Amino acid sequence: VGDATARDLGEFGLIAAVTARLPLTEAVLLGPGDDAAVVAAPGGRVVATTDVLVEGVHFRRDWSTGYDVGRKAAAASLADVAAMGGTGTALLVGLAAPPDLPVQWALDLTDGLRDECALVGAAVVGGDTVTADRIVVSVTALGDVDRWVTRAGAEPGDLVVVAGALGHSAAGLRLLETGVRSGALVDAHRRPNPPYLAGPALAEAGATAMCDVSDGLVNDLGHVARASGVRIDLEAALLHDDAVGLEDVLAGGEDHALVATVPAPVAGCRVIGRVLEGSGVTLDGAPVAGGWEHFA
Amino acid sequence: VGDATARDLGEFGLIAAVTARLPLTEAVLLGPGDDAAVVAAPGGRVVATTDVLVEGVHFRRDWSTGYDVGRKAAAASLADVAAMGGTGTALLVGLAAPPDLPVQWALDLTDGLRDECALVGAAVVGGDTVTADRIVVSVTALGDVDRWVTRAGAEPGDLVVVAGALGHSAAGLRLLETGVRSGALVDAHRRPNPPYLAGPALAEAGATAMCDVSDGLVNDLGHVARASGVRIDLEAALLHDDAVGLEDVLAGGEDHALVATVPAPVAGCRVIGRVLEGSGVTLDGAPVAGGWEHFA
Repeated sequence: VGDATARDLGEFGLIAAVTARLPLTEAVLLGPGDDAAVVAAPGGRVVATTDVLVEGVHFRRDWSTGYDVGRKAAAASLADVAAMGGTGTALLVGLAAPPDLPVQWALDLTDGLRDECALVGAAVVGGDTVTADRIVVSVTALGDVDRWVTRAGAEPGDLVVVAGALGHSAAGLRLLETGVRSGALVDAHRRPNPPYLAGPALAEAGATAMCDVSDGLVNDLGHVARASGVRIDLEAALLHDDAVGLEDVLAGGEDHALVATVPAPVAGCRVIGRVLEGSGVTLDGAPVAGGWEHFA
Repeated sequence: VGDATARDLGEFGLIAAVTARLPLTEAVLLGPGDDAAVVAAPGGRVVATTDVLVEGVHFRRDWSTGYDVGRKAAAASLADVAAMGGTGTALLVGLAAPPDLPVQWALDLTDGLRDECALVGAAVVGGDTVTADRIVVSVTALGDVDRWVTRAGAEPGDLVVVAGALGHSAAGLRLLETGVRSGALVDAHRRPNPPYLAGPALAEAGATAMCDVSDGLVNDLGHVARASGVRIDLEAALLHDDAVGLEDVLAGGEDHALVATVPAPVAGCRVIGRVLEGSGVTLDGAPVAGGWEHFA
């Protein structure tokens, strides 16, 4: 595609170029190119979630490639499906972009979405492309779920467990802000690695509540504590991470770790605290706060 | 909410205010507020489609209220579900908005989404709210479908039929551009009226191909002609509309009329042409072009 822009290809040319790169799966009964897609939902139900990423807020084109943004955008939604105990099957992608967007960037975005989908066996099945000043990527993930786990079932006596990294993305972002352009933490910011398999595994192991860490551990566990009517006490020693400080572990979002409350330990998940009677989130018994909020 | 802005309420306050206005339906197994929603898909499959509306491209805040934009955004996606022969069940909404967005605008948007959903029995089940310079609304609609109809099955000998208005939205937009602020055509631009029931009815009547008119009749029938390997000949006399000129009927998008090819006339739908061997779209036998393309 060389130096071609979205304007050069036009809407339909861009859609054709993007669609040509997308493999389908057995669950896709009708793929991209029509008014809507048709996706199998063998359990007679579908898990669905939408995330929106905005250039300059969630990513910068000089810090992340189109491929990185595709990986990250798909990960944000597929992690939400996993956090319900489900497995992603299909992605729909809305792309708002300026007419001078290099076509190569859109193709790289597509490849990133495709490769992140491949980790769970999902496929990109549809989307929309429109004009805007800045890039906005909205991703809707659909998924299958057997037993779904909300934020509302945590019980006093449960353990709090986590799968996946905490605070790595936030630490990586800070490194990018200081001029560092490579390394494991920077990569963790550009392309988070949600522990997709842990979602269904935790659901099957009897998790009483679960969510993904997208706004920061304390913020997200705050939702669980509120929805469940319990207090969640974290233990600082159990949150120790050789790579990042405790503040990033507590407040960093966007790693899309999965945090759950369970009656008993679950293989592959670290215990980081326990559920008590009361309200709010505490660290070694003392109130704690931290996390990310939009419009602040 | 008075003069409060999104910044005043914060992300979670805004989400709570929006969610409180949303009624659910029996198909919603788990509604807004968790990582993802769970929606019934009784047929073991789900129709899914995403549309993105951008401020300044698809709507202007001085020409359309938040309520209008909600109606229009929901209509664009729900019409795509109808165009497959399906019925919408659930909407997921991504809202990117500046921090100074009046909360009332977001609530009005929500009411518009809710009321358009009510026309087909669907519910808003989830979404995401993020910061951006300009408003971008992305709507994903999910739906049930029995027999789905693509763009690829039109056969020579079929009739071309349409349900719903053609060109009214485009004519209304031109009136808005010249300073007119009320009237049926202006209303048609602000809040299109897709003929939702005609979608499943046409599928049941044996429609061989179907799509909604979002990019203009000739453009959208061009997709059908290409996908089906046929020529579609429209008859100018059958396209006459007392309210708008032939050019708007042929090239105007966003009314979300449904156009289908059928072996025999269908009650409630107007015949506007026929399917022939060949390729492309013709008007009374002569080539014709027209429609809307992004990035142009």
